[in-house]
Amino acid sequence: MSICTLDELDTPALLLDRARLDANLARMREQAARLGVRLRPHVKSTKCIEIARRALPDGGGITVSTLLEAEYFFEHGYRDLFYAVGIAPQKLARVAALMARGARLLLATDQVEAARRIEQRGRELGLCFEVLIEIDCGDGRCGVAPHSDELLAVAGALSGGARLAGVFTHGGHSYDGRSPEAHAAVAEQERLAVVTAATRLRAAGHACDIVSLGSTPSVRHARDLAGVTEVRAGVYMVGDLFQCGVGSCAPDDLAISVLATVIGQYPQRGEIIVDAGALALSKDTSSMRFDDERNHGYGRVLMADGSAPPQALYVAHVSQEHGVLRSRDGAPDYARYPVGTRLRIEPNHACMTASAYDRYHVLGDDGFGIEAQWPRISGW
Amino acid sequence: MSICTLDELDTPALLLDRARLDANLARMREQAARLGVRLRPHVKSTKCIEIARRALPDGGGITVSTLLEAEYFFEHGYRDLFYAVGIAPQKLARVAALMARGARLLLATDQVEAARRIEQRGRELGLCFEVLIEIDCGDGRCGVAPHSDELLAVAGALSGGARLAGVFTHGGHSYDGRSPEAHAAVAEQERLAVVTAATRLRAAGHACDIVSLGSTPSVRHARDLAGVTEVRAGVYMVGDLFQCGVGSCAPDDLAISVLATVIGQYPQRGEIIVDAGALALSKDTSSMRFDDERNHGYGRVLMADGSAPPQALYVAHVSQEHGVLRSRDGAPDYARYPVGTRLRIEPNHACMTASAYDRYHVLGDDGFGIEAQWPRISGW
Repeated sequence: MSICTLDELDTPALLLDRARLDANLARMREQAARLGVRLRPHVKSTKCIEIARRALPDGGGITVSTLLEAEYFFEHGYRDLFYAVGIAPQKLARVAALMARGARLLLATDQVEAARRIEQRGRELGLCFEVLIEIDCGDGRCGVAPHSDELLAVAGALSGGARLAGVFTHGGHSYDGRSPEAHAAVAEQERLAVVTAATRLRAAGHACDIVSLGSTPSVRHARDLAGVTEVRAGVYMVGDLFQCGVGSCAPDDLAISVLATVIGQYPQRGEIIVDAGALALSKDTSSMRFDDERNHGYGRVLMADGSAPPQALYVAHVSQEHGVLRSRDGAPDYARYPVGTRLRIEPNHACMTASAYDRYHVLGDDGFGIEAQWPRISGW
Repeated sequence: MSICTLDELDTPALLLDRARLDANLARMREQAARLGVRLRPHVKSTKCIEIARRALPDGGGITVSTLLEAEYFFEHGYRDLFYAVGIAPQKLARVAALMARGARLLLATDQVEAARRIEQRGRELGLCFEVLIEIDCGDGRCGVAPHSDELLAVAGALSGGARLAGVFTHGGHSYDGRSPEAHAAVAEQERLAVVTAATRLRAAGHACDIVSLGSTPSVRHARDLAGVTEVRAGVYMVGDLFQCGVGSCAPDDLAISVLATVIGQYPQRGEIIVDAGALALSKDTSSMRFDDERNHGYGRVLMADGSAPPQALYVAHVSQEHGVLRSRDGAPDYARYPVGTRLRIEPNHACMTASAYDRYHVLGDDGFGIEAQWPRISGW
């Protein structure tokens, strides 16, 4: 039963294709099962309780990127949460408050100084914070090297008001890969980094229960994860043009898009303008990294029913509330796009685009009726 | 009286320097008075009722970029609203609802087909929609040429269920200028475009009461606006690195920044990581257009008190919740930035950055105490 149709939505609006979402969720669950690891989905991409419940129909732990996510998902029944961003000491009071309500909230750091402050604060509060040490597997953003002295120094600081719960890594450099082989190679780098770190920690007398890795491309294409206990991935749930471009999903897997309306035609410039601009789509330019047909500017344009237009259209420019569409196949056929025409725009980066919206409009099986509105959160 | 201090805020948080805001607002009011035009501030940059009230202490009309802004500001007492984005016909029901509550809501288009649909819908609803025709002054995004036949065709379609209320233009190409002279030249292009269009419309027997132009750089540096009745600008209220780079404000005018906390030091890479990333800062890259010291990556980093650090720091990379800081003056002095250090980050583009937050934390005169929290809206 539909609550309304696509035609009745105000634009811009965030659409979610439920059938594609469910297929993406099932595929990743199967992959985790095949690899023999727990899937701890990252809810940062979608920030939606309805999606989390579908991702984990049998329950389980989740990964969050903000304390607001931790609080929100805890209030909706998730008690096992990993906040996978290096903790700022000032946030420990909020962490403690959530723990006092019954949450298991795993923290992250890769800093000796932070570990000391976590431990000290735990003692002051009469708590034991659980911490995962971040390992750098080659991404070069965060993390200690698996063979480093720092690894043992961070672990050494975690006793008393804190406890070492495990190690984790994020192979963000999987985003540079363009093939299943490349992503599998990053997965193996991730695996080697965390297993090496865990082995060293255990040899030094530390418990190291959780051995975690993940990024959507690397988990999707991992071949063997011996020694790993759990994997994290988030954007696999809905996909986007960039994930499609790097080969971690197929074009028909993309589950979110922005519904927009044509507000002007500019034949003299070969352009069409819609009411979805920089705020509605984000200024993420990741598909522009591709030098071929995978470059869709700020987004790929589809007809309202999700079908591809006869000439490929892309979002060439954005300003705050304007999206400027162009075709690479000559001038658009303007007769197809009169003012008021509804179009769908697939985003470069789902996490960035979805963040502008407070809800998903969930498309049912006919691809036209909206069967639900699922709220999502933003902020910190 | 402070409600809290900077130290007590959770990060990332959006800060607003009230004294700078007020100075920016006064400067633009003085400029409009000097030019003899009404200032119709664009609330899209700040989306905050408290800021609008300070921008227009004696009341007056405002410009909005979404119908949600129109509704929100109307509910807070603003009855004269110009929605300066080409109207999608589907939005007319929502426009009519606001008019029925007593709003004067001016609409925009540059399309004959849209004008016909507006007029027809007005007749169906027994209303008269008021419409401004958008004129292209050289920006090349939207608008009909001032000498074009289309101008008269759009105006001709607006009678019965609609009424021509005036003309407007946006010299968005002022963003390409780098000097007061260049911005003044764009202001003169804007003026010439709308005055020419208004003159032609009046000669053809149309009333054309409102003659409107604007962009922050062009209004700030306009020298003479003979024939213009009102100006629109928005980002002048708070400024940002891009506006500063193009010379429409000075570094000491920037009134908003993001408070962030150091979560890691990476001396081997010359990096520091803070808890403000792509969502907290946006992925706007506009300061990167400058090939000199005005390029601050994704943001310029200041100490928590707003002072410049001894070595200039900028945000070199962002991922969803991580901001990677680097210095162009050699390695940062890490002793100054232990984990937990608070820093302020000035944004490239205030409108994009502020959109991620639901409130401004208003800094009082001491630059440390938070004297108020001003809510802001997002969405459509």
